[in-house]
Order: sequence, then structure tokens, then C-alpha cells
Amino acid sequence: MKKIINRPETVVDEMCKGIVLAHPELVLSEKYKIIKRKRLNKDKVSLISGGGSGHEPAHAGYVGTGMLDAAVCGDVFASPSTIQIYNAILETRSNRGTLLIIKNYSGDCMNFDAASEMAEDEDIVVEKVYVNDDVAVKDSLYTIGRRGVAGTVFVHKIAGAAAEKGMDLSQVKAVAEKTIANVRSIGFAFTSCTVPAKGTPIFTLEEDEMEFGVGIHGEPGIVREKIVPADELAEKMVERIVKDIPYQQGDEVALLINGLGASPVQELYLLNNSVSNAIAKRGIKIYKTFVGNYMTSIDMAGASVTLLRLDQELKELLDEPSDTPAIKIW
Amino acid sequence: MKKIINRPETVVDEMCKGIVLAHPELVLSEKYKIIKRKRLNKDKVSLISGGGSGHEPAHAGYVGTGMLDAAVCGDVFASPSTIQIYNAILETRSNRGTLLIIKNYSGDCMNFDAASEMAEDEDIVVEKVYVNDDVAVKDSLYTIGRRGVAGTVFVHKIAGAAAEKGMDLSQVKAVAEKTIANVRSIGFAFTSCTVPAKGTPIFTLEEDEMEFGVGIHGEPGIVREKIVPADELAEKMVERIVKDIPYQQGDEVALLINGLGASPVQELYLLNNSVSNAIAKRGIKIYKTFVGNYMTSIDMAGASVTLLRLDQELKELLDEPSDTPAIKIW
Repeated sequence: MKKIINRPETVVDEMCKGIVLAHPELVLSEKYKIIKRKRLNKDKVSLISGGGSGHEPAHAGYVGTGMLDAAVCGDVFASPSTIQIYNAILETRSNRGTLLIIKNYSGDCMNFDAASEMAEDEDIVVEKVYVNDDVAVKDSLYTIGRRGVAGTVFVHKIAGAAAEKGMDLSQVKAVAEKTIANVRSIGFAFTSCTVPAKGTPIFTLEEDEMEFGVGIHGEPGIVREKIVPADELAEKMVERIVKDIPYQQGDEVALLINGLGASPVQELYLLNNSVSNAIAKRGIKIYKTFVGNYMTSIDMAGASVTLLRLDQELKELLDEPSDTPAIKIW
Repeated sequence: MKKIINRPETVVDEMCKGIVLAHPELVLSEKYKIIKRKRLNKDKVSLISGGGSGHEPAHAGYVGTGMLDAAVCGDVFASPSTIQIYNAILETRSNRGTLLIIKNYSGDCMNFDAASEMAEDEDIVVEKVYVNDDVAVKDSLYTIGRRGVAGTVFVHKIAGAAAEKGMDLSQVKAVAEKTIANVRSIGFAFTSCTVPAKGTPIFTLEEDEMEFGVGIHGEPGIVREKIVPADELAEKMVERIVKDIPYQQGDEVALLINGLGASPVQELYLLNNSVSNAIAKRGIKIYKTFVGNYMTSIDMAGASVTLLRLDQELKELLDEPSDTPAIKIW
């Protein structure tokens, strides 16, 4: 295992410290590994997300103006505890209630749900949404139903914009759910990732193989098959996504080309060219594109493609200002 | 070779298309692989950089308001031709002259120099600066004198801010040279990169080895040695950098923790924690920190550390607005 670390057991602690050192507008609650805005606004709906670490910049990279108020950091690929999440809710308590944005994994669902019940006992109004954008498989190693993957970033962005504009908790939840209803993703891996505490890859692939439909924790995908050229790969991914919800000619989408950790920016932009062509061919218009490492799987080589089908409301919210480590839009 | 590509010979073309598709404020001159701002301002000094591809987001990711006007894209790890650079100068010609920001490699220096002479024959005033921030080695495979590496990003930012503020060519050149005089970098590799056209790694390392002082084209560094923990690695890098130019207690720096392509964001932030501690221990203050993939070596695992010693003028220019794919500051 070749990693820039000191010891596997301190990876998440030291990473969290490194994040707030680089971004002094954020602050770390060390005991509960909560990264939150230094200046909280009590008069807006609070937004909290999080989950296992290893998906950086998710989720701490989306804390800031126009997106999240706090991210709760679990151990690598392990849900944060109920107590961690409960404390995040307390520490970012506002007069307008709290929305939890949860990726659909059994551990996350269980702990976020339990924490929200504890918070409600303290008279904090808490609503929850569950992101399940991965079209690859129904049910998976850690999931009942579909997995939540990179589409979560769009939920942070859209719900964050709504909260920043002063919308009510019910309205913020509604746009988050509209985003979830319209966002779909699929990914592939050229290599496995390696969890620091384990020290060896989760799976192995031959030199000419890829895992199509891989999960962001290295969960199996749809099929293990020979690597294909970028254009063909893009075509396969876009086809899977657009088959899943009906698209009309002229529909507009936000597109996210997401690196899984070890694939270089060069290849992600090349993939964007292939994916953009596959989308255009279907008469779908791309309103805005994001290319980079947004929701990673530690050091996995590979990428995912996310399409968010937009209406006027979602477009306007997507264009709202935000200022976070991983997404700045002005 | 596992890469998201169609064919090695079309990598740079397709990548350039993918960049302008994602960033419609940029435009591609396909014939010469020039990526430039769609809206050029004739009343500011034009800034052009570029070099071999494979360092993405450098350099196209720094084209935009407050940074470059154009980036010229060579083949992977090969200088753009004189004709490419000459056309970039013509296409971004302004009433205030042009500054070329060149990384110190023999091929780049030769071709940028020749292009500037051709442009001067057309009565375009061209000035040049050569970035040579790598403290690892004097002279190298492709370089006489020190190599230009990630510190180049600070030159783009500072000179870009100066140009955007309306400074004269001589003033823009002066702040670029001040930046070069105060910026130092050093990197290390855990793995080699693989050039698409070659298809095999440039060098090999044992499972417990790193190349300390590696260049961004896989050039040899100072020593091949056993991997050390992040804190020790940070200490070694910072020591090399601060030994190179005198620092006073209380001096302020901008810090760049730069991933070389395949090292995950998690590890870069962890490294930032280690490096920040090593800097603080020396009584040096960190004014602003950047963490991410800024100047890569295709798919190399590893990172570099860059310190830019700041005075009041450099701080003010660093804080100026910019809006480019890879750096947005408002």
C-alpha cells in the first residue's frame, strides 16, 4: 500500500485537520469529526450531509455558502455514528429546521435516522432525504435499493441554494427530492481502491478489464468486461442513464464527469468530450458541465457520469452563488 | 495501459474539445490547439502560457478572467511548436503587449523564444518570463538550470491579476519575476506516469519506494528511497524549500499542496496537515492554502509542495478576483 499517510488509524483525523487548515472559513469539531461553517446563519434551514470518509472532496468540500452547513465524517467507508450526527444537528441548529441529505446505504440510513429522532426529542425539526442515483444495480452489498453516488453533489448544490435563498424546510426538502427524482449516475472502475486499514485492494482486475457499474466502495457492478474505447464507454453509460427516466428532445441537463480518485484530469476531460457527444446525439441539451474529482472512491481509477434533468427552478438554483472548497459558482 | 481514451494519437485533441465543452467561456482554435478566452480585452496585457500536455488542469484550466488569455497545448510531454505559440500570440494580440509565461524546459524555451521573435517582426511587443521553481535538481533531463513545476500556477495568478488591473507590460513582467524569485517547489512520486503513446511506465519503483525530488515528466529526482510517513515527508520537503531562500520569523507564504494525478484528495489534505505543521514550526505564517490537482504528471501517484514567499503587493494580487476552470477566487 503506497499512501501519503502516517498511520491508517489517524487518516481521517489528520485529513479533517488538513481541510480546515486549508479552508479557514470552516471549523472542525474534533471530537465528533464534524466540519462546519465558521459563520452559521440561524435564520436559514440547516443542511447536513456526510457518511464514510474516502469520498473526498465529499462531503466536507461542499460545506460553505450556498451548500452545506456541516459534514459529518465517518471512518473510511464506514458510516458516522448516531452520536456524531446528532451533535452535528445540535451544533448547526437553526430557527428554520434541519435537512439531512443521506446517501442510501444501510449504515448511513440507520444512523442518520436515529440521530434525527434524538434531535426531535430536543424539539429540533428534522427532515431527511435519501439519494439513490446509481442506476447500475438494485440492492447491493451495503444497500437496499439503489446506491447514492455522485448525484449527491447536485442535491447539496440545489438544496443549499434553496436554503440560502431563505426557503422553508418543506420547500428545501421538496427541491432536494425533485433533484433526487431527476438525477441518475453510473460509474466504472479500472482499478480497485485500497482502504488504509486493510492495506490491500478490495478486488483485482486484469490489465485489460474494467468493472462496469462499480459502486463507490468498490461494490460489484453490472459486469466485469474488457476495457472499451472512451466513445464506446460513454455511449454505454449515457444509454443506461437515459433509459432509466424518459427524456424528451430538447430536455436540458446538468452533467457531472466525476473522477473516482486516481484517474487524471486529462482523461476526465477526454471522457467529457465523448459523453457530451453521446448526449447531443440524443437531442438532449447540456446546460452546465462539471468535470473533476467530486465524489471519489479513495484511489480508484475510473469515473462516473451523472445527468440531472433540469426544469426552470432547478436551473435557477444551480446558478445561485456558492462558495465551498470543491464548488465555487458566482 | 489502462486509460480512458480512444487512441493515443487523439488524446490531446479530444481533451481540448472536452475542456471547451465544459467551459463555454473558453474557445478552442483547433488547428493550433490554443485554448483562449472567448471575450478578449484588447486593453490589457495579454498573458500566454502552455507547454506539453499531461499536466492538466495546467495550463488551459488557468485561462479566464484574472489569469491567462490563452494556453497553447503541445502533445503529451512535448513542447508546442513555434507556429502554435506564434498563432496564440496573434490571436490574443492586445494594445498593451504580450507576456509569455514559460516553464524552464529546453524545448519550451526554444519554441516560445522563436515565436516571440516572429511576433516582434509583426510589431507585437512580447516579454517573457521563465519559471524555475523546482529546488530538487540543478539541470535535468530536459532542462538547463532548474525545472519549472507547480509554482507556475502562482505566476499565472499573480501576473494575471496585475494584467487584469490594467498594469503595463513592464509592471506585469516585474510582478511575474518577483513571484518567480520567491516561489520554490519540490515533489515526490510513489509511481511513474504512463505517456499514452508509449503505453508503459517511464520508470518503476518497488512497493516500498518513492522517488524524492521527481520532475513532472518523470525525470529522476534527488534520491530513490524508502517511503516515509507523511509527517517526515513533509518535514523533508519543507526543509529543502526553506533552505533555498532565507526566511524570517513571521514571513508569510502561499502554500500549494499539488497532487500529481493519481493521489487522492484524502491524502493531499492529510499532507496539508503535515506540511502546515512543518511550516508553523519554523515561524512562517501561511496566508492562503491551495490543495488539489493543479500541475499534474498524467497519472503519477505523488504530490508536490510549493511555497510562495509573499510581500504586501503579492498578497493583494493573490486576493484579486479570478474565474477560471481550475481556480476561482472572488
